[in-house]
Amino acid sequence: MKLGRLNHIGVATPSIEESLRYYRDVMGATLTHEPFDLEEQGVKVCFVDTPGQEGTHGTQIELIEPLGESSTLTGFLAKNPAGGQHHLCYEVEDIEEARNWFEGLGKRILGPTRIGAHGTPIFFLHPKDMMGQLTEIMETPKDDSHWSN
Amino acid sequence: MKLGRLNHIGVATPSIEESLRYYRDVMGATLTHEPFDLEEQGVKVCFVDTPGQEGTHGTQIELIEPLGESSTLTGFLAKNPAGGQHHLCYEVEDIEEARNWFEGLGKRILGPTRIGAHGTPIFFLHPKDMMGQLTEIMETPKDDSHWSN
Repeated sequence: MKLGRLNHIGVATPSIEESLRYYRDVMGATLTHEPFDLEEQGVKVCFVDTPGQEGTHGTQIELIEPLGESSTLTGFLAKNPAGGQHHLCYEVEDIEEARNWFEGLGKRILGPTRIGAHGTPIFFLHPKDMMGQLTEIMETPKDDSHWSN
Repeated sequence: MKLGRLNHIGVATPSIEESLRYYRDVMGATLTHEPFDLEEQGVKVCFVDTPGQEGTHGTQIELIEPLGESSTLTGFLAKNPAGGQHHLCYEVEDIEEARNWFEGLGKRILGPTRIGAHGTPIFFLHPKDMMGQLTEIMETPKDDSHWSN
């Protein structure tokens, strides 16, 4: 296992619309994406780009809002009504290899490997096995189309 | 205000030693720094580098452990004994300008501007005014000495 890019920070919100206004009007974000539904995971998703070093792309903010009443976010927002930091997502080159790695270490994986918000395979690891951090592992996208420019 | 680089994600931990083992042995981090005390803020600090795009430096993980019993982290760890995501830190070019900007918007700033873990001026904003995210604003370091290589 080799530490990959911090692809995004998942931030739960009761309202993507309100969060987008916040990121644009308060934090000065200019590169925001269109929201879309990720029904399989029960969330509405919207990415905000942050700049990287020397003109590269940085770590994204992934805004996630509950989609439907059975959303996995419902409990999180009950505890944190204003929203807040929800998970960290690291990239790997090969998702199967990564899954085997974490399984071999006895880390609890939350459900099957599935297609994530950037169209590549992902899985989540239990925060109790990851020093309190809900951790998403995602295969690196093959192109740059998930960024705004 | 223009959205700057996501300099680091602050991650609270009951033990930097244990977190370093986790980042190295589980997550595969290779670029880790020496821990140091930031007495003014009541925390012990240690940075872990993540890679950016195209060989650049990415967003860092800032491990923070309570230093002394009056640490601001004591309450956080009482609620989250294993640790977890604590704050987001964005860079700005001019800290005074940024402070004026957030004050002008009526955002609560937590204490005076002070020198942060990277040796540049910083301040924190109240999570209740920032969509649930404890947010650190930090002036961009003038050189690259805060990275491992």
